[in-house]
Amino acid sequence: MQQFLPNTVALLSRTPKALDALLRDLPEAWSLRNEGENTWNAFDVIGHLIHGERTDWMPRARMVLQFGESKTFVPFDRWAQARESEGKSLPQLLDEFARLRAENMEELRAMNLRPEDFERRGRHPALGVVTLSQLLATWAAHDLTHLHQLSRIMAHQYREAVGPWSAYLGVLQCKGHSS
Amino acid sequence: MQQFLPNTVALLSRTPKALDALLRDLPEAWSLRNEGENTWNAFDVIGHLIHGERTDWMPRARMVLQFGESKTFVPFDRWAQARESEGKSLPQLLDEFARLRAENMEELRAMNLRPEDFERRGRHPALGVVTLSQLLATWAAHDLTHLHQLSRIMAHQYREAVGPWSAYLGVLQCKGHSS
Repeated sequence: MQQFLPNTVALLSRTPKALDALLRDLPEAWSLRNEGENTWNAFDVIGHLIHGERTDWMPRARMVLQFGESKTFVPFDRWAQARESEGKSLPQLLDEFARLRAENMEELRAMNLRPEDFERRGRHPALGVVTLSQLLATWAAHDLTHLHQLSRIMAHQYREAVGPWSAYLGVLQCKGHSS
Repeated sequence: MQQFLPNTVALLSRTPKALDALLRDLPEAWSLRNEGENTWNAFDVIGHLIHGERTDWMPRARMVLQFGESKTFVPFDRWAQARESEGKSLPQLLDEFARLRAENMEELRAMNLRPEDFERRGRHPALGVVTLSQLLATWAAHDLTHLHQLSRIMAHQYREAVGPWSAYLGVLQCKGHSS
């Protein structure tokens, strides 16, 4: 548990650069195509991560510290990015995500969380009581779930192009796992 | 098809930087842990990508151009990295992968492939006849399959830590898809 916060921050701090290295100036054949009707492309994924930086992770962490279980988190809007990303380019979104994440990491450090703080409890609108450490761990795992999704969305664009090799490419067997 | 080669090269050229941004100096709690017995950690994944750069993609592309269907590709050793990565650090592997990939991109460009070359055929030891374009597309999709795997391996380390949120995190439902 002693390493939980530095480990979590280490991952959260790296995600914007990793996504930038993968996606900036990548041809639109990769970054603007999705997996079919009502699915996301890379642009949508980054917009969703931005929305989380603004409205989900740190606002909820503040609520846990301030109100504990007495106030329920605001539900997360999974489709907000369609509205908020409108008219922006992918490089703009990548810049915005990097900036917001850096600001949030700064604020998280400034909270000076002590080991006992990680067990402090908040109330999720659907999951009920959750702890601050679960919230922070989910923040990191949420980055990874979208990296997982992104690699699948992009691989989908070459589903036909790989021919018989599709049998060997695990990512092409993945149907997604989100409910 | 006109954009096939530049699109493929665009992705292949970005993977080393994306993996570097994600993994370099990341705590070992992320990079050296796996998903259980006989599974890979991030270190193994990079070693496997290095082995592919040396023995799989470009050697097979050269074979297609030189011998067509008359010579069968050498089977790929999926466990070679255990031997070849021994004694190396993850930063060393990341450097090696970046260097080999850059060299291979240089060689691929120097081949000056024409549209008709993409239909040239080679022979895979298990899949039979494959085309050069299928080989190149698989190279890119193979990067993505391992990015997909890597995000799953890393998320696995927080499987317990996220508590009830695990229900919402698609990557934690993924059991892998490789045969």
